[in-house]
Amino acid sequence: MAIENDSGRAAGPVVRRRKSGRTWEHVDVTRYKEEGSAVFRGMSRQVLFADPALQAELRYFEVQPDGFSTLERHVHAHAVLVLHGHGRCLVGTEVFDIGPHDLVSVPALTWHQFRAGPEEPLGFLCMVNARRDRPQLPSREDLEELRRQPQVAAFIAHQFQ
Amino acid sequence: MAIENDSGRAAGPVVRRRKSGRTWEHVDVTRYKEEGSAVFRGMSRQVLFADPALQAELRYFEVQPDGFSTLERHVHAHAVLVLHGHGRCLVGTEVFDIGPHDLVSVPALTWHQFRAGPEEPLGFLCMVNARRDRPQLPSREDLEELRRQPQVAAFIAHQFQ
Repeated sequence: MAIENDSGRAAGPVVRRRKSGRTWEHVDVTRYKEEGSAVFRGMSRQVLFADPALQAELRYFEVQPDGFSTLERHVHAHAVLVLHGHGRCLVGTEVFDIGPHDLVSVPALTWHQFRAGPEEPLGFLCMVNARRDRPQLPSREDLEELRRQPQVAAFIAHQFQ
Repeated sequence: MAIENDSGRAAGPVVRRRKSGRTWEHVDVTRYKEEGSAVFRGMSRQVLFADPALQAELRYFEVQPDGFSTLERHVHAHAVLVLHGHGRCLVGTEVFDIGPHDLVSVPALTWHQFRAGPEEPLGFLCMVNARRDRPQLPSREDLEELRRQPQVAAFIAHQFQ
C-alpha cells in the first residue's frame, strides 16, 4: 500500500518487510562503490531510508567474511549500529571488536574502516546526514602516519602496497 | 576510550557495547514521555545517537507486551526499523503487522501508533530529524474521524473514553 504524503507526492510503501537473506522489499542491493574507485572487498549497500523529509539517511552495509570497507575519512559523522555478525573496526588509531547491536560513533575527519571476521558476514546500519562531503582516501603520507601505530599497521596490512 | 572531536570537545566513547536486556553502555533508559502528558502504556526510550554533528537522532523504543505508544502526529517524519519482537502499527488509516527488521515510514502529519503483541516486548529503532516540531494529540473530532475506519476503531479501542 502506498500513501500520498503532505506534498501530494506518492511516498512509497508504509511498511517494507524484511525478506530472507537480509534484504528488504523495495530496497535494492547495490554496489558499495564503483569498482576500482577505492580499496574494499566483499561489500554491499542497501539504502533503507532516504526520504527528502528526513535530514539523514539510514543505510545497511554487509561485509562478507574477511571483507572490509574502504579506509577513509570525511567531515560528516557516522552513527553505526551492528545488526548481526562480528568483526572489528578502526576508528582513529584504535581497533575495536564489535558484535550484534554494538554502537560505533565515527567523528568528523577520523580515519575508519570496518572488517568482518572470517566466519560470518558483518551487517551494520549507518546513519549519515543526507547532505555530506565526499570521502577522502589516504595519501601515501597518511598511510605512513597511520602505520606508526602498530595496531593500525596490523589492521590495514595487506590492503595497500 | 573517549576521543576528542574536531572542535576539541570530548565526544564520548567511540564504541558503546550492547549490555544484557537490550540496554547499552553509556545510554540511559528514560521515560517515554512525562506521565500524564499523553495516553501510552509500557514504553521506554533510549537515545542511541544524538550527536550535534548529525542532523538526525536514532532512538530505541521498547514496548512491553500489550503496551502502546501515544497516538499522535507531527510535521516531522519517522523512519522505523523493528529490532525485535512482533506487534502492529497504525499509520494513517491502515494497520500493519510488523516483525524483526521490517521498515516503517511515517510521513508528515500522519496519525500513528505502535503496539506490542501479548507475548513479548516490541523493540524498534526510530530515526528523526534533530530539529522537529512537537507531537499533536488527537482532538475529540480527530478521534471521531479516525473511528470511522473500522480497523482504526478496533486498533485504538480501550485507550480513549
